[in-house]
Amino acid sequence: MNNIDFQTCIEEILNETRGLIGKGRVADYIPALAEVDPNQVGIAVQTLDGQTFQAGDALVPFSIQSISKVFVFSMVFRAWGDRLWSRMGREPSGNSFNSLVQLEHENGIPRNPFINAGALVSTDCLLSISKNPLKDILSYVRGLAGNSKISYDSVVANSERETGYRNAALVNFMKSFGNIENDVEAVLNAYFHQCGLMMSCVDLARAFSFLANGGINPLNGEQILTQSQAKRVNAMMQTCGLYNESGEFAFCTGLPGKSGVGGGIVAVVPKMFSICVWSPELNRHGNSLVGMKALELFTTRTGISIF
Amino acid sequence: MNNIDFQTCIEEILNETRGLIGKGRVADYIPALAEVDPNQVGIAVQTLDGQTFQAGDALVPFSIQSISKVFVFSMVFRAWGDRLWSRMGREPSGNSFNSLVQLEHENGIPRNPFINAGALVSTDCLLSISKNPLKDILSYVRGLAGNSKISYDSVVANSERETGYRNAALVNFMKSFGNIENDVEAVLNAYFHQCGLMMSCVDLARAFSFLANGGINPLNGEQILTQSQAKRVNAMMQTCGLYNESGEFAFCTGLPGKSGVGGGIVAVVPKMFSICVWSPELNRHGNSLVGMKALELFTTRTGISIF
Amino acid sequence: MNNIDFQTCIEEILNETRGLIGKGRVADYIPALAEVDPNQVGIAVQTLDGQTFQAGDALVPFSIQSISKVFVFSMVFRAWGDRLWSRMGREPSGNSFNSLVQLEHENGIPRNPFINAGALVSTDCLLSISKNPLKDILSYVRGLAGNSKISYDSVVANSERETGYRNAALVNFMKSFGNIENDVEAVLNAYFHQCGLMMSCVDLARAFSFLANGGINPLNGEQILTQSQAKRVNAMMQTCGLYNESGEFAFCTGLPGKSGVGGGIVAVVPKMFSICVWSPELNRHGNSLVGMKALELFTTRTGISIF
Amino acid sequence: MNNIDFQTCIEEILNETRGLIGKGRVADYIPALAEVDPNQVGIAVQTLDGQTFQAGDALVPFSIQSISKVFVFSMVFRAWGDRLWSRMGREPSGNSFNSLVQLEHENGIPRNPFINAGALVSTDCLLSISKNPLKDILSYVRGLAGNSKISYDSVVANSERETGYRNAALVNFMKSFGNIENDVEAVLNAYFHQCGLMMSCVDLARAFSFLANGGINPLNGEQILTQSQAKRVNAMMQTCGLYNESGEFAFCTGLPGKSGVGGGIVAVVPKMFSICVWSPELNRHGNSLVGMKALELFTTRTGISIF
Repeated sequence: MNNIDFQTCIEEILNETRGLIGKGRVADYIPALAEVDPNQVGIAVQTLDGQTFQAGDALVPFSIQSISKVFVFSMVFRAWGDRLWSRMGREPSGNSFNSLVQLEHENGIPRNPFINAGALVSTDCLLSISKNPLKDILSYVRGLAGNSKISYDSVVANSERETGYRNAALVNFMKSFGNIENDVEAVLNAYFHQCGLMMSCVDLARAFSFLANGGINPLNGEQILTQSQAKRVNAMMQTCGLYNESGEFAFCTGLPGKSGVGGGIVAVVPKMFSICVWSPELNRHGNSLVGMKALELFTTRTGISIF
Repeated sequence: MNNIDFQTCIEEILNETRGLIGKGRVADYIPALAEVDPNQVGIAVQTLDGQTFQAGDALVPFSIQSISKVFVFSMVFRAWGDRLWSRMGREPSGNSFNSLVQLEHENGIPRNPFINAGALVSTDCLLSISKNPLKDILSYVRGLAGNSKISYDSVVANSERETGYRNAALVNFMKSFGNIENDVEAVLNAYFHQCGLMMSCVDLARAFSFLANGGINPLNGEQILTQSQAKRVNAMMQTCGLYNESGEFAFCTGLPGKSGVGGGIVAVVPKMFSICVWSPELNRHGNSLVGMKALELFTTRTGISIF
Repeated sequence: MNNIDFQTCIEEILNETRGLIGKGRVADYIPALAEVDPNQVGIAVQTLDGQTFQAGDALVPFSIQSISKVFVFSMVFRAWGDRLWSRMGREPSGNSFNSLVQLEHENGIPRNPFINAGALVSTDCLLSISKNPLKDILSYVRGLAGNSKISYDSVVANSERETGYRNAALVNFMKSFGNIENDVEAVLNAYFHQCGLMMSCVDLARAFSFLANGGINPLNGEQILTQSQAKRVNAMMQTCGLYNESGEFAFCTGLPGKSGVGGGIVAVVPKMFSICVWSPELNRHGNSLVGMKALELFTTRTGISIF
Repeated sequence: MNNIDFQTCIEEILNETRGLIGKGRVADYIPALAEVDPNQVGIAVQTLDGQTFQAGDALVPFSIQSISKVFVFSMVFRAWGDRLWSRMGREPSGNSFNSLVQLEHENGIPRNPFINAGALVSTDCLLSISKNPLKDILSYVRGLAGNSKISYDSVVANSERETGYRNAALVNFMKSFGNIENDVEAVLNAYFHQCGLMMSCVDLARAFSFLANGGINPLNGEQILTQSQAKRVNAMMQTCGLYNESGEFAFCTGLPGKSGVGGGIVAVVPKMFSICVWSPELNRHGNSLVGMKALELFTTRTGISIF
């Protein structure tokens, strides 16, 4: 790894993939996302020995959306341990088209923590143990990223709630099976706020580096998860992290990762580094067009793979 | 890795997991499988530097069943290349309960090569390029394992056909969508024969070692797949190799693997070794009860993981 | 028909079917329903020439639950006419287990007005044209039944809301497809109130008699629906009126009808009469155990059938 | 009824609906159907007092396809009685898109006898009691229609088998659940032959008249089914006779009926008459475009309805 010139590599990839801009579509279901300038690309790499490499718009905060599922899951995994698995599974969910029928078939137990239904259960689990979940989430991600300026975009959170009828359907549906303990609106509020967290590529690469480091935050030595738990979060990101493109992402990059409709994708190379790419335009599966390509090129050029 | 005493490790695990025998169920849908003595456990490890470690019944040939999906897929992946992806996907399939509705929803294209529908398409692809597919499969696996005595159990193959109405339904259904080129009975015949291949733990550990070795058979230096293809087969085994327990297996062992209802499970540790555990009794998901536990213990004790 | 001695017939049937009490289960998802005395059976027949026959507890008001779907649908069918069919279908829904996947597959358009999703859309349609929907529904059913004392049981309505997460899921889900115009809570409130209407067998037999009479209320000559519309409501009750037992009910009685989990079933014999049976215990499909049997006996004995 | 001038009525309707020709599509999955001249329309009415009214191409034999499901079901209903209901249900099947998942969910038991899966089970039931099922079917329909010249179109039957992979999938799938007793190919052969029966509108109107007549063939007084059984067949045609347009057909005509992709639709008015319309072009649901409209006009003009 020492031989890899990360800086040159990410700059080259950024230049090559920038040409894809215009061929995807920015998420437009809420104004706050639709208005993001699509001509932005950022890449950041955080190595376990503390180096940060960055290119392009790597310091611009963006809406992390579903990437937040990993943070909230990690919070409750630490607190609840294996009791969590009575509330959610750890199997890939297959095609999104049948997510509801699966939820019905399996009595309101989501297949894994990285689909919306699963993240809503994680959020419910957090509400059951936290007096101020919004404050706790914020302090958790600030600590992970070493950046006390990270905050929620309330405009995004409120817009999400106004159009978030499908998520409201999911929470109500799971509550009808007894798999939501707290008030429906409280769960939705915490969920939409976590989706509205604003973080940059550098923030996210740093915040995920504990997963490359056996559960210990390499920035400050704090134990976030046990080694076994960190390994298991990676395994779940590998099989379930990119919705209906989880197999495709594993196939093309061979890395565990997590994406969000804000255009960010974070991936982890165990024992080496974490990497985040961001560009707002999405492919038809809802993953960043530039991000998918950039990470495929990155693993191909560096020869880095877990397989 | 050099520090790991594989021999002691697999012997200990074999002794500890043997106690699970009696708590699972041998596959009983055909007599030839139902009659297998359940009191058998075998483990074999094949390292890339050519060492073979074995314990218990590691030399007893058993019916490899779905493990054969990896062999036939590898044969056609090499020959067809990326043209294969118009015939099948590479996403996890989610719950088995909806396999048929997914096939219908996706116009007869199976989600991945490691579910039955996908393996039937692989077989059909092989029939389109091979004059004698049964002979070709046999010579392929004999070469991989370095064992010219590997053969089909025709009793198993014929029994499978007699009760294999669900697989016959799948082939007919896919053919109604135009995704089967060859004669239905010919596809089924080749499919049931490959399922009836008899191989031991040692055979399978050796036959999978090219996947740990960047596509090159370490026994004889032959290039079986390109490095990129081998990596991709591993990625697909990781996300799709154990049916509805793929997530569970990734979660517990962190390794790419493939199981069969004959009680075998093979797993790959890239750049290090391949390992096969066999014991006929299955858990409720159709995977070897002892095999799942043994591989979980193995990764925990050795600390080996790709994550 | 004149030859049928309705009074003797319904008394005999009541005595014979009373023995089924104890073999079903009262709906228990809300206390207000669970506390109903199960030892009650009522039958009422309302002929088009104005005669009312009654037996047993035919004057005891009970919670009409899903029977209300016919009333609210009739209100909006009159007002909206065939524009309604862009908001809902008129096909049987098949098995309840896949109601949500069908709703997803068909972009939030319920299959017919007599499943919950369809009734929620009817309610939404009513809210779009009524300033005081609860008052309007009440005055509509009072007029149909000729009984100004009919009222809502608010305890039932409020209990329903407190546990009605599945219906909340349906409304949110349909709203995510744009098929709900009004506020989610307002729709749910009106829906749960209509389910909580308290009416007796005599009330319901009278209130359905316009459907036996070509759309005209025989009690006062008022045109409720056109002849064509009344015929079509009957056709939909025939194919969709008893959830997953619609076929069974048509098979056994040959009549259009509608049931509710309060234990009531109303059926219509066009050009002749309407009949309501009530007994609180339900079979496993959620229909009154005594009611199903009583109506089967009634059609067998009288030889009355539309077929 | 005596006042209805059937002859004038059906001639007028034939002239008015002929204009729809060119707006539908002839079934084209096998050449024998695709080559039928689309410019044909026939209507026949058979009254219980023995009169036959006909217009247009009412004497031209056509491929009755799924209409045959009613004949074979009636044969086995008579022989098996209520034992049949352990092999199939009598509920509408909902959307065709999920036919296979329903079959899986319900362990290989088709929802009703008038979907393909159900008719394949009826055929299997016939094979279990008949030494020469093809001969028996032929003699049955010849007797019902009073026409000894009715025969199979073997070209159609053979073409169907060659392309009938979806039906082959259904039989194999149900056999995997143990719900097919006989050989898969024998069931398919008998099924495709019955679909290839060639009958005219007059033949079909006559052959269905026992269902309008309480189970007794009005042509010769023979008891085909009991009164109760005939009523029940009508009830099932009402709820399940036109696939995914069963509700629509009931809504528009209010009659029990059965359609086939050859372009025929037969309907029954209990105690009065049976009617058959034929025109080869189909709507998007696979029902005759002219036939649906003609029957709607017929019931509207004559005011005939069971509701």
